[in-house]
Amino acid sequence: MLSKAQKTRVEQLKQKKYRLRHEAFLVEGGKSVRELLGSALSTERLFLTPEFAEKIRAEVPRGVPVELLSEEELTRLGTLSTNTTALAIAQLPPETPLTPTAGTLLLALDQVRDPGNLGTLIRLADWYGLAGVVCSDTCADPWAPKTVAATMGSFTRVPVWQRELPAWLDSLPAEWPRYGAHLEGDNVHRLDLRPNGVLIMGSESHGPRPEVLERLTQRLFIPGAGGAESLNVAVSAAILLDNFHRTL
Amino acid sequence: MLSKAQKTRVEQLKQKKYRLRHEAFLVEGGKSVRELLGSALSTERLFLTPEFAEKIRAEVPRGVPVELLSEEELTRLGTLSTNTTALAIAQLPPETPLTPTAGTLLLALDQVRDPGNLGTLIRLADWYGLAGVVCSDTCADPWAPKTVAATMGSFTRVPVWQRELPAWLDSLPAEWPRYGAHLEGDNVHRLDLRPNGVLIMGSESHGPRPEVLERLTQRLFIPGAGGAESLNVAVSAAILLDNFHRTL
Repeated sequence: MLSKAQKTRVEQLKQKKYRLRHEAFLVEGGKSVRELLGSALSTERLFLTPEFAEKIRAEVPRGVPVELLSEEELTRLGTLSTNTTALAIAQLPPETPLTPTAGTLLLALDQVRDPGNLGTLIRLADWYGLAGVVCSDTCADPWAPKTVAATMGSFTRVPVWQRELPAWLDSLPAEWPRYGAHLEGDNVHRLDLRPNGVLIMGSESHGPRPEVLERLTQRLFIPGAGGAESLNVAVSAAILLDNFHRTL
Repeated sequence: MLSKAQKTRVEQLKQKKYRLRHEAFLVEGGKSVRELLGSALSTERLFLTPEFAEKIRAEVPRGVPVELLSEEELTRLGTLSTNTTALAIAQLPPETPLTPTAGTLLLALDQVRDPGNLGTLIRLADWYGLAGVVCSDTCADPWAPKTVAATMGSFTRVPVWQRELPAWLDSLPAEWPRYGAHLEGDNVHRLDLRPNGVLIMGSESHGPRPEVLERLTQRLFIPGAGGAESLNVAVSAAILLDNFHRTL
């Protein structure tokens, strides 16, 4: 049974200000909740359907309170259009030090406001084993339910930081390459790119802000042949990251 | 002023069955509507805010009826969370012949159910100038408002067909390569891929169906280094398409 206090807590965690205040966030759906339980992140409470609770019984750490709910109750509680499995309250991970290391690549995002795109980018960073994702403070919230869902579990593995990007870029060692996608950049197929430095991607509609653009050390162009003016931000990042990892 | 009949027509075109019945679809937002007006597609009617109508006056073809609406009325009429510019009713383009041609690449999609992903894939096909996109009949509707919006105007340029995929694949010339992403496929970095044949992408959660998988002539693997099990379907397609076009 769901207490009023629990319901209020879940309701609050749908909003960014309460996620920050309570240092907690929501994880929804069976796959994501299982990734959470198998990770180093702390789970505060689980809301499960009886069927799913039975299925994952061995995965629930001792001491984590479990509430059993019907599919209807669970769906009403969370943000998914239907939820037949699980919802968790998890603790926000403490921020790890953001120390650029030679031979590693960071992904930096300027004003990526769509949580689905942000989650897809975090999942992509996980695929390539990047050092992490640095979000401008004007990006979507990395801990919003839609972002977490779009990471498909990668939220448990990829360090994410929020920074004022131009100032952070200025704080980097001068020799650190700062790459960015640009329609007038160098053809990536003719470059020998290595995962070392920062790859900066801008928002869909406007690209990186001028104050970010002027801090790039190399502009990268993805050759195409058709009529589209641009590519989705996650799609561009994917193509560039594959070009950074061609020696694998 | 908005007549009841016009309102009903727009309301109906939010649903697939009426789009098919009326052979029409909705285009929302200023950028998409301008792409429509500059394309070969027929516009049946425009709903514009007075400010936007003034801005695009020279682009509206003679004979297309225009209704002026306030931003509030326009937003209430369509599906966007806010619309401060335009909504159009356009006619579905007649299907062009689907005739595979040597030296061209088609993108085929099996069960891509998310309209945002489908639209992003159509935009990607446009970027690479592909011959078009073949959707399984279980994909999202290419003419749904969310799909059209995600194409960012590419809906005006990319031919789209809906087919029962296994049967269509069987109808192709035997020598036509049928590529697909697969976790146990060949490393794309070690192949010399050319845009010739069909690239088949499956749904996010399940990949292509077994009856589609067994029809592939080559399985392609995208090398990664991290913890994610898989990539978003549009992201995978983007990386593969860049690998097909490295000679550009």
